[in-house]
Amino acid sequence: MNSFPESTVLGKNVVIEEGVRIGENVQIGHNTVILKDTQIGNNVKIGSNCVLGIVPGGNQKMRKINNGEKPLIIHNGTRIGSLVSIYANSVVKENVFIGDQASIRENVTVGEESVIGRSAIIELNTQIGKRCTIQTLAYVTGDTVIEDQVFIGPCVSMSNDKYMGAKDYHLKGPYIKEGAKIGNNASLLPGISIGKRTIVGAGSVVTKDIADDEIVVGIPAKKR
Amino acid sequence: MNSFPESTVLGKNVVIEEGVRIGENVQIGHNTVILKDTQIGNNVKIGSNCVLGIVPGGNQKMRKINNGEKPLIIHNGTRIGSLVSIYANSVVKENVFIGDQASIRENVTVGEESVIGRSAIIELNTQIGKRCTIQTLAYVTGDTVIEDQVFIGPCVSMSNDKYMGAKDYHLKGPYIKEGAKIGNNASLLPGISIGKRTIVGAGSVVTKDIADDEIVVGIPAKKR
Amino acid sequence: MNSFPESTVLGKNVVIEEGVRIGENVQIGHNTVILKDTQIGNNVKIGSNCVLGIVPGGNQKMRKINNGEKPLIIHNGTRIGSLVSIYANSVVKENVFIGDQASIRENVTVGEESVIGRSAIIELNTQIGKRCTIQTLAYVTGDTVIEDQVFIGPCVSMSNDKYMGAKDYHLKGPYIKEGAKIGNNASLLPGISIGKRTIVGAGSVVTKDIADDEIVVGIPAKKR
Repeated sequence: MNSFPESTVLGKNVVIEEGVRIGENVQIGHNTVILKDTQIGNNVKIGSNCVLGIVPGGNQKMRKINNGEKPLIIHNGTRIGSLVSIYANSVVKENVFIGDQASIRENVTVGEESVIGRSAIIELNTQIGKRCTIQTLAYVTGDTVIEDQVFIGPCVSMSNDKYMGAKDYHLKGPYIKEGAKIGNNASLLPGISIGKRTIVGAGSVVTKDIADDEIVVGIPAKKR
Repeated sequence: MNSFPESTVLGKNVVIEEGVRIGENVQIGHNTVILKDTQIGNNVKIGSNCVLGIVPGGNQKMRKINNGEKPLIIHNGTRIGSLVSIYANSVVKENVFIGDQASIRENVTVGEESVIGRSAIIELNTQIGKRCTIQTLAYVTGDTVIEDQVFIGPCVSMSNDKYMGAKDYHLKGPYIKEGAKIGNNASLLPGISIGKRTIVGAGSVVTKDIADDEIVVGIPAKKR
Repeated sequence: MNSFPESTVLGKNVVIEEGVRIGENVQIGHNTVILKDTQIGNNVKIGSNCVLGIVPGGNQKMRKINNGEKPLIIHNGTRIGSLVSIYANSVVKENVFIGDQASIRENVTVGEESVIGRSAIIELNTQIGKRCTIQTLAYVTGDTVIEDQVFIGPCVSMSNDKYMGAKDYHLKGPYIKEGAKIGNNASLLPGISIGKRTIVGAGSVVTKDIADDEIVVGIPAKKR
């Protein structure tokens, strides 16, 4: 049986599996599910009907957690909305905000004070820096690097597979440098890099690397 | 303890917080969470695993609801799918349909007989008129006005922040006039207006105001 | 009262309505809701907080299930993530994978070994072939045919209503032939067909039929 600090506020029908650790002053909403070994820091608030600590590949009941994998770690002061799913083996740093219905896969790091918008999706093996904004319904593909203070607009789309499943390919998402801003509904192709402080216009399709301090728009995205 | 009409049909594991009011002939699906003070009219049907009445800014247990804020109000005859999240201080009028996994923030009004598609997202401070269709996965940004009988296609994207977080800016979403139709996956930029009965083609990017009764397409969207 | 095989592993607070049938070695996560008459094959794994077997049009408690409608059928070996919604009168074939927060409407068939990405949405009356990949956040509209081994990239958008609600129109989604690949965030218009092995570039808008073995890009999409 787990034991949690007296300061823990649990909603109704909360399910907490074995090995979960909870810090001080944590609130967990109704019907939320915290799976095996998840670690929750101090002053974390979690909404209702979330599923946290999902083990990829499906079966969290029969596999061995000691099989080299790590739990989901949620650091102090982070706030998570409702209906959110987050996988094991990811780290959410201090004072992050994760909106309702967002989803984060395994082997992801979300840096301090970043915001993950509602229904935004972060795929596996992706690093997000500090104080980034990933807006609502944005899709951050796998194997992506997003440096600090990047702004990803609503509904931005990325891909990491040049051949769309047709050939063997070393999957590689975009590399987005510090302070870049991607306009809403832009599309970023596999493996491209976007320079520091560069701005990509709404609806653009970025097909090749863009240098620092540029403004690009259109399909394909070109200097304005 | 709340008391509800005998005509109420509650699923299993439903959580209803204090102050909730429920009209006649209401059905609430399994595992749905109705948070503090939410008001539900007559003949409302709600699916399973929803979270309704979320207080923005996080902590619905410790703040004072009388702090100038209003509850979520759902009017007669409205139907809500499963896995939906809706915030406090919003009003959903009569006979609205809200699809599964949709999300609606605070200080939003959804007019009579409008349809909010599955996984559509409505941000805060937004007004939606009567008999509108907001299609599946459409993103209606904050500070937006949508008049009556507007059609927003699937996956349409909008933004309300011209500088993408870089400067102080008075956030302003699009203003979409009566009977306008926005094609699927179009992008609308901050503060633009779209005229009455105007049609925006699929995949277009609208960068400036469009008059009444126009048809525009492309990036940027121009008269055809 | 239902009776299930001893091999069934049920999470906490699982709700199973009457008439549900469950095969051997099935696992169902916490707080998941399985509605009336749903049929689940052998070796199926389902995550937490799902809602499966939703009856369209709302009220699964008061209608008659024998009214010519069929249940949701999930075949052997299929795996379903968390927070997923699937409707009655659809068939998910063997060894399908359905990601978290995905949603599938009624009268849909998903063929063997296909993958439905996270938060992807499949509308009603749609057929998806074998070994297809429908990527994350893709929107497959109603009345669509997707043949075998098709790749639909992330955030692809489709529509099936040429007049956007303005006129009576026989709704018709795209027809996508065997082995076609649709790049991320492309938009497909109502009723168009895409030929075998044809590739549509990221962010393109397909406005007319495309033959077999083509590569098309841009708005509107043209041969490269």
